[in-house]
Amino acid sequence: MGPLDFWFEFASTYSYLAVNRIEPAAAAAGLAVRWRPFLLGPIFAAQGWSDSPFNLYPAKGAYMWRDMERLCARDRLPWRRPSAFPRNGVAAARITLALPEAERPAFVKAVYHANFALDRDIADAAILAGILDGLGLDPDAIPRRAHDPAVKARLRGETEEAIRLGIFGAPTFVIGGEMFWGNDRLDDAIAWA
Amino acid sequence: MGPLDFWFEFASTYSYLAVNRIEPAAAAAGLAVRWRPFLLGPIFAAQGWSDSPFNLYPAKGAYMWRDMERLCARDRLPWRRPSAFPRNGVAAARITLALPEAERPAFVKAVYHANFALDRDIADAAILAGILDGLGLDPDAIPRRAHDPAVKARLRGETEEAIRLGIFGAPTFVIGGEMFWGNDRLDDAIAWA
Repeated sequence: MGPLDFWFEFASTYSYLAVNRIEPAAAAAGLAVRWRPFLLGPIFAAQGWSDSPFNLYPAKGAYMWRDMERLCARDRLPWRRPSAFPRNGVAAARITLALPEAERPAFVKAVYHANFALDRDIADAAILAGILDGLGLDPDAIPRRAHDPAVKARLRGETEEAIRLGIFGAPTFVIGGEMFWGNDRLDDAIAWA
Repeated sequence: MGPLDFWFEFASTYSYLAVNRIEPAAAAAGLAVRWRPFLLGPIFAAQGWSDSPFNLYPAKGAYMWRDMERLCARDRLPWRRPSAFPRNGVAAARITLALPEAERPAFVKAVYHANFALDRDIADAAILAGILDGLGLDPDAIPRRAHDPAVKARLRGETEEAIRLGIFGAPTFVIGGEMFWGNDRLDDAIAWA
């Protein structure tokens, strides 16, 4: 079975955990992973939310921030609560789709690291160029390619596909027609295969 | 450390899973469990929801129903999607609090079984009396006791305590001042002790 479709949104805190767990977990099961950035904004807007539910519902938000501290400690991931939340991940998502598939995981992980370990503004073109540069990727040509109408349409199409699949949060894992929501369910998704 | 405070709401699907897992899991860790029914209705109402989020947000609801099928199969629990959801758990919660602590777990499990395996209306006094009777508990005296103003006040107080703790969903586990939300996190809560 496979591949394992890994749907993530750059603003999503719990996706940070999954981004750093999925490769060894999937490899151990012999599963290929397809990294699929999408946007939660339009999905939240469609259900009447103008902001992250973690901001709209303070008890849920307070829990999430404490939970992220605990889970990052458990996973030995660096963590700094971002001074702005949620950060706009549109530019990072477009760059991801402008990259060849093999180069996406390293870029994605570096963007999450910038947002949730270094508290950098991942909506800032200079920050994203710096990340590309640090990975030995072209910091001028790639962001230019990311502005191509075809790439923008691709991201819109991915978000529409997420809606069609019934995705309502991130991270979400889809394998063999089954959907699993949340970093907590990564192992269940892999076991399903 | 301990006890493990187990906050549940009778209408909650994921609480059905936790109710049937918590005793062996906590016993294996040498942890006592305090069974604490509360009401999600006032908590949801305070954030502007007049219904379960699984009804208000259809994608989330569709996912939950499929997820419950999978999880009940995994846990070898009988499952029938209730024909009415959410069912009002106020009467069952009051009866739970009217029972001595030692008699609560069996009653609670039987009520969840009635709702989620047998599709019975757990708001119906006759159904609840039948459950008590089946457990060898007094089906007349206990519901009468559950109508006592002190028991009603106790349930209100528990729900207020849940709000004070920042609880926003069920099941929720609290141990040593740490909160863990969701059936998926029961093992984390126990490991925290």
